[in-house]
Amino acid sequence: MDLRAPAPDAVAALVAALPPGVAVTDAVAVEKYRRDRTEDPGAGTPAVVVRAESVEHVQTAVRWAAEHGVAVVPRGAGSGLSGGANAVDGCLVLSLERMRAVEIDPVTRVAYAEPGLLNAELKRAAAEHGLWYPPDPSSFEICSIGGNVATNAGGLCCVKYGVTTDYVLGLRVVLADGRAVDLGGPRLKDVAGLPLTRLFVGSEGTLGIVVRAVLRLVPAQRRPATLVASFPSLASATSAVLGITGRLRPSMLELMDRTSINAVEDMLRMGLDRSAAAMLVVQSDEPAGTAAEEISLVTQICEEAGATEVLSTDDPDESEAFVAARRACIPALERTGRLLLEDVGVPLPRLGDLVAGIEAIAEQHGTTIALVAHAGDGNTHPLVVFDPADADAEARARGAYDAVMRIALDLGGTITGEHGVGRLKRPWLEDYLGPDVLELNRRVKAALDPQGILNPGAGI
Amino acid sequence: MDLRAPAPDAVAALVAALPPGVAVTDAVAVEKYRRDRTEDPGAGTPAVVVRAESVEHVQTAVRWAAEHGVAVVPRGAGSGLSGGANAVDGCLVLSLERMRAVEIDPVTRVAYAEPGLLNAELKRAAAEHGLWYPPDPSSFEICSIGGNVATNAGGLCCVKYGVTTDYVLGLRVVLADGRAVDLGGPRLKDVAGLPLTRLFVGSEGTLGIVVRAVLRLVPAQRRPATLVASFPSLASATSAVLGITGRLRPSMLELMDRTSINAVEDMLRMGLDRSAAAMLVVQSDEPAGTAAEEISLVTQICEEAGATEVLSTDDPDESEAFVAARRACIPALERTGRLLLEDVGVPLPRLGDLVAGIEAIAEQHGTTIALVAHAGDGNTHPLVVFDPADADAEARARGAYDAVMRIALDLGGTITGEHGVGRLKRPWLEDYLGPDVLELNRRVKAALDPQGILNPGAGI
Repeated sequence: MDLRAPAPDAVAALVAALPPGVAVTDAVAVEKYRRDRTEDPGAGTPAVVVRAESVEHVQTAVRWAAEHGVAVVPRGAGSGLSGGANAVDGCLVLSLERMRAVEIDPVTRVAYAEPGLLNAELKRAAAEHGLWYPPDPSSFEICSIGGNVATNAGGLCCVKYGVTTDYVLGLRVVLADGRAVDLGGPRLKDVAGLPLTRLFVGSEGTLGIVVRAVLRLVPAQRRPATLVASFPSLASATSAVLGITGRLRPSMLELMDRTSINAVEDMLRMGLDRSAAAMLVVQSDEPAGTAAEEISLVTQICEEAGATEVLSTDDPDESEAFVAARRACIPALERTGRLLLEDVGVPLPRLGDLVAGIEAIAEQHGTTIALVAHAGDGNTHPLVVFDPADADAEARARGAYDAVMRIALDLGGTITGEHGVGRLKRPWLEDYLGPDVLELNRRVKAALDPQGILNPGAGI
Repeated sequence: MDLRAPAPDAVAALVAALPPGVAVTDAVAVEKYRRDRTEDPGAGTPAVVVRAESVEHVQTAVRWAAEHGVAVVPRGAGSGLSGGANAVDGCLVLSLERMRAVEIDPVTRVAYAEPGLLNAELKRAAAEHGLWYPPDPSSFEICSIGGNVATNAGGLCCVKYGVTTDYVLGLRVVLADGRAVDLGGPRLKDVAGLPLTRLFVGSEGTLGIVVRAVLRLVPAQRRPATLVASFPSLASATSAVLGITGRLRPSMLELMDRTSINAVEDMLRMGLDRSAAAMLVVQSDEPAGTAAEEISLVTQICEEAGATEVLSTDDPDESEAFVAARRACIPALERTGRLLLEDVGVPLPRLGDLVAGIEAIAEQHGTTIALVAHAGDGNTHPLVVFDPADADAEARARGAYDAVMRIALDLGGTITGEHGVGRLKRPWLEDYLGPDVLELNRRVKAALDPQGILNPGAGI
């Protein structure tokens, strides 16, 4: 079935079917909901924006869209980095930002979270019960749980604690025909029926609308010990990364290159070593004695790999400052130009090859590529930086962006580790999946959304 | 399409298409492959058994089955407890027992395992590199990785370390049309395309044949400290369980009731307390100092809950003896009569209600129900024991088996936590899933196996 923009009277009927202010069509609102955090000149204009306040509102919106053959673009906090929530012309943007209830069951150790709840709000709610929700995208203060589920979001702690899907025990989902179903529930073990819960985690809004998540919590993290090491080359830093992961499992293992260090230092003025080619931020959250042993071992590994300076600290404020520096990389780099943000990942032994390849691509294309990486899990964020006023620079940047994804594929890697395919990485998806797996994806999509109304053009 | 038994010349063609001894039809072989570990008088008789030695053999068998409309019943080590590998009449039993290669990549910390590899063999291969594959069904010495993936198997360590799906990074799968595809890979983070890898984990052979798994490994487990506590009632034991899970996260938290304790003691003669109504086996694998603190806290919680005796030990042999006692429950109870094995799970706060309900059901139905449980994750194995020579006893036992699943459903629980639906629990599946989710399951199944040849009658 071809999707189409709805007729004005159909839109009016939807607006009337929902409480005042839930469905809006005014130009200001429509403009506000055209894009997520991704720069995309091709983002369309929605016909109507529904800011759902309940499951029933979501069902009303989806049923209406199904009836009228209108595309539905679901949206959480709008912090996506792959354009997964960018509107298509004539669509219904379905914002979940107002659904943000959270309930903690400290005995079962689960959270019941609505999709608009921010990751940071969930962490705080869990912390009131001495519990912790590990997944921690760098954007955790501004990204929503619904978006985290949609993209199977990662973050910094994943090297030890896994990714979003490892914490999703159950979902309430509104299907493409408007039915709401409960999948899974507050049970660590449940194998009755196909594992559909996890099929939805990372499906980028293409299979259904997540309206509630049942999330596994764990005991509060111990105060981590932190190490920061400076390296004279990217190769020495990646060599240290492999040395570390081969011998222990830190709770954080992050890398910043010189461009990133300098951008962050420009913004935060915290005394980072501007001359370093790379910096690693490593944490251990084991009990104090073990953490001290681990930090000592990491120090030795970094020094053997050629680190020029290694600092470590148990002080929570100082630790947090270094982690905050790492988290500030993308905002800091955004101040230096327009960004094309990559999210490529490779099997760990290929990390050095990937990093060297990216350096070569930057040189070859005459563009700047900053590198920040969740190095411990092989997930990197090369950021191609360019001046948007310079068309030639933009062309070179886009060439480099393509080349980075190609080299990741050549190294047995993925085009996206944690941000999602969205709309921006779709041109590379078939080369990654291959025709058979792509076709398998499409069969599953068609089985769950035969009209194809859910987030068309995104994900698969 | 209706499935049918193949014509003799079709079977002969398959036998001829594979190396000698791979496809067999003799009565002895056929009898051997009719059943997994589940007693099922309804198990059928296969037309042919293929003991594949390579992906190509699997593809040949599946293509043949698709061409002839023959059911394929995949099978690993045959240790299944829900009849998922029980044959249907005229089917092709596809045994993966001969495909048992394993390769460990210690830098990426992954194992590449073929489906016939035993869980224990994988653990040993990982241990040679100082690594650990956590999932640990009680049957880990006799169950295969393929079966573990098919059922999303759990075990004893899941309360802290999660279940099989949390360790599956990639799969090579032979689809219903014989194509082989690679899903995911040796990367902790990969969100390109739908999360099909995890759709296959727990799909019980109904969507495709897993021929290789890429599995996440973690650093070797520390030597655990072990506590064993005896309780005067099941209620006091379940109360202790909630007290423990509410304050810390042990690496094991197992429960045995009096019937189980006595059956194990009859078999092993190790001096268990035959008079106890329940026994808990608790472990902490934190670093030594922290483990001692945790065991001390667990001791206090057990005593406050009314434990009559609490022992703890750091001695590895003594620890292993108690864990072995717990793992011996099912074999020990098999010596006391025919078993109907349950696998019901409830949200933890309802554990006491479930256990009390099971006691009432046993009394009401005039049958014995032994109870062993992965108590820390709410997953219980009530075992209805009966004399197979006594038709009336069997009828009462079957009534009790049904009643236990009903009470689990009433308490918001699942009919199977880790064994799978197989063929035996299928009559209860719709009541658990409800019609909408069941229909969703069927749509996904039909999308991936439109002919319905893969493990018909099992799983969904």
